[in-house]
Amino acid sequence: MRLVTARSGPAFWPGVMIGDDILNLGGCAAVIPEARALPPDVRGILEAGDAGLALVRSIMDAAAKTGHRLRETGALAPAASVKLAAPIRNPGIILSIGANYHEHLKEMNTAAPKTPMSFYKSLGSITASGEPILLPARHPDMVDWEGEFSVVMGRPCHRVSEAEALGYVAGYTIVNDVSARDWVAPAFAAQGMMPTIVAWEHNILGKMFPTFCPMGPCIVTADEIADPHDLHLETRLNGAVVQSTSTSDLVFNVPQIISYYSQFLQFNPGDIITTGSPSGVGYGRNPKLFMKAGDVIEVEVRGIGVLRNPVAAAPGP
Amino acid sequence: MRLVTARSGPAFWPGVMIGDDILNLGGCAAVIPEARALPPDVRGILEAGDAGLALVRSIMDAAAKTGHRLRETGALAPAASVKLAAPIRNPGIILSIGANYHEHLKEMNTAAPKTPMSFYKSLGSITASGEPILLPARHPDMVDWEGEFSVVMGRPCHRVSEAEALGYVAGYTIVNDVSARDWVAPAFAAQGMMPTIVAWEHNILGKMFPTFCPMGPCIVTADEIADPHDLHLETRLNGAVVQSTSTSDLVFNVPQIISYYSQFLQFNPGDIITTGSPSGVGYGRNPKLFMKAGDVIEVEVRGIGVLRNPVAAAPGP
Repeated sequence: MRLVTARSGPAFWPGVMIGDDILNLGGCAAVIPEARALPPDVRGILEAGDAGLALVRSIMDAAAKTGHRLRETGALAPAASVKLAAPIRNPGIILSIGANYHEHLKEMNTAAPKTPMSFYKSLGSITASGEPILLPARHPDMVDWEGEFSVVMGRPCHRVSEAEALGYVAGYTIVNDVSARDWVAPAFAAQGMMPTIVAWEHNILGKMFPTFCPMGPCIVTADEIADPHDLHLETRLNGAVVQSTSTSDLVFNVPQIISYYSQFLQFNPGDIITTGSPSGVGYGRNPKLFMKAGDVIEVEVRGIGVLRNPVAAAPGP
Repeated sequence: MRLVTARSGPAFWPGVMIGDDILNLGGCAAVIPEARALPPDVRGILEAGDAGLALVRSIMDAAAKTGHRLRETGALAPAASVKLAAPIRNPGIILSIGANYHEHLKEMNTAAPKTPMSFYKSLGSITASGEPILLPARHPDMVDWEGEFSVVMGRPCHRVSEAEALGYVAGYTIVNDVSARDWVAPAFAAQGMMPTIVAWEHNILGKMFPTFCPMGPCIVTADEIADPHDLHLETRLNGAVVQSTSTSDLVFNVPQIISYYSQFLQFNPGDIITTGSPSGVGYGRNPKLFMKAGDVIEVEVRGIGVLRNPVAAAPGP
């Protein structure tokens, strides 16, 4: 099942992909009355647990019998005609894991950390597939990509074991952890504990700008991903491959990440975990390569889809 | 105006304090029809901007004329009879500033940072005044308080100047940035950039446990706080004063914090900024002093109220 959030003008609605079409789960109730019982957004559907996903499946079954009427009412429409939003517009957290691909650590000449390391990506940076990544007016010159295989949590979870962890996953999506690299060099140059921490936080702030968290195009439910650690991820800049990896190269895999962090915090339905960037970021190249206005950046995870964003200058001085 | 969120069983509702009573803003529509137009939670009211707060004021005016009927219907009830939730249960972020009181830095023998430093407090840690702080089962022995004067954002804001910043504030509340200190010493002992960053993140994870972010009791709107940098803050453990400061001791004041972080991220209505802990945390004492089951911790900011939480052991092994 591929869940999406879409928009019609200022209104957002949950949808599900049926072949090359998208079914408006909120807008189909005139034809499929049971859809009235569905929560109004994807996070709400996940919060409803197994019952929420079962209801979506039931609506899809009903839609298979009434496709003609759904198409007449506009509740079923070609995906190409639908404007997507981020699949979860309002996650509780986006926990972003860093330094988590063996090949990436090798190219950075850095040892793997002994525990996962992470930061919280700002929710105000979320944007959709198809929407522009805006180069910050004052920091437009070092904006880099990080294509990341990402986890969508499906059930509240605190202090779970690795063996249990995947049972709390609703599905998977893609995030581009866009990063302005202006503060990387000062972070590496900092000396002493507090200056290092302050410089590192400053570096992380370079990931918080509006539009710096493209997410999507959809959430593929966990039942459709046989092995989350055997997926091909590819990032393309204007069609040229810049990142290419298998998720088998992850240092800490999905159950390890969930179990580790769940010892501290409680995950809730709709929370997002980005599992880290593979090798091939622009900052690690020689010469360095960054995105500029007019570029198109795509992150594809086979089995999930393509997250595609044009790049543009932010308005204003 | 003092906005609260309250609960009746599983249902949460926005309210406003009128003297020693709380008016149920959702539940008063039978008597005051215009209340039907109000968003269903405090974040929604803030998102409605000036119109949202104006509507609350108008409802309060109507309530002054119909108090008797409101009391009969239960929409107006003594505050003591109402179970509070956190005033904002679903902020977009809780940005927590650290190292931000001169006296606290002196007791730690640390120089003031040149820019604000911060972390994101997990939203899953939010709890209400009156609810227990739960000592984590595996880390119960070093749980500390940090009473913090906190800002509630009222309008979307990105790249604003210090002069403009207070115009984006809806009001003020109190947060107790509860912290398990088990990982402080390893953070200070770490050597080298990556080990320092990893150890620091681990230390911050000690602030993410469920119930480690008591918030409330209310949001006092900005028009009632003449000067946010002239407020008395006091933390009491079982009635004994353990922190006592004026917000005039802040290293970075509210406009400076908002302007600085707004250069990177976009703040949205309902976002919370905790401005840092003053001196007097338990870890900084000799001997060290931590909270134990049965204690009561209170944080009072004059002009806002008292955030009061009992301390209990978390259930389970």
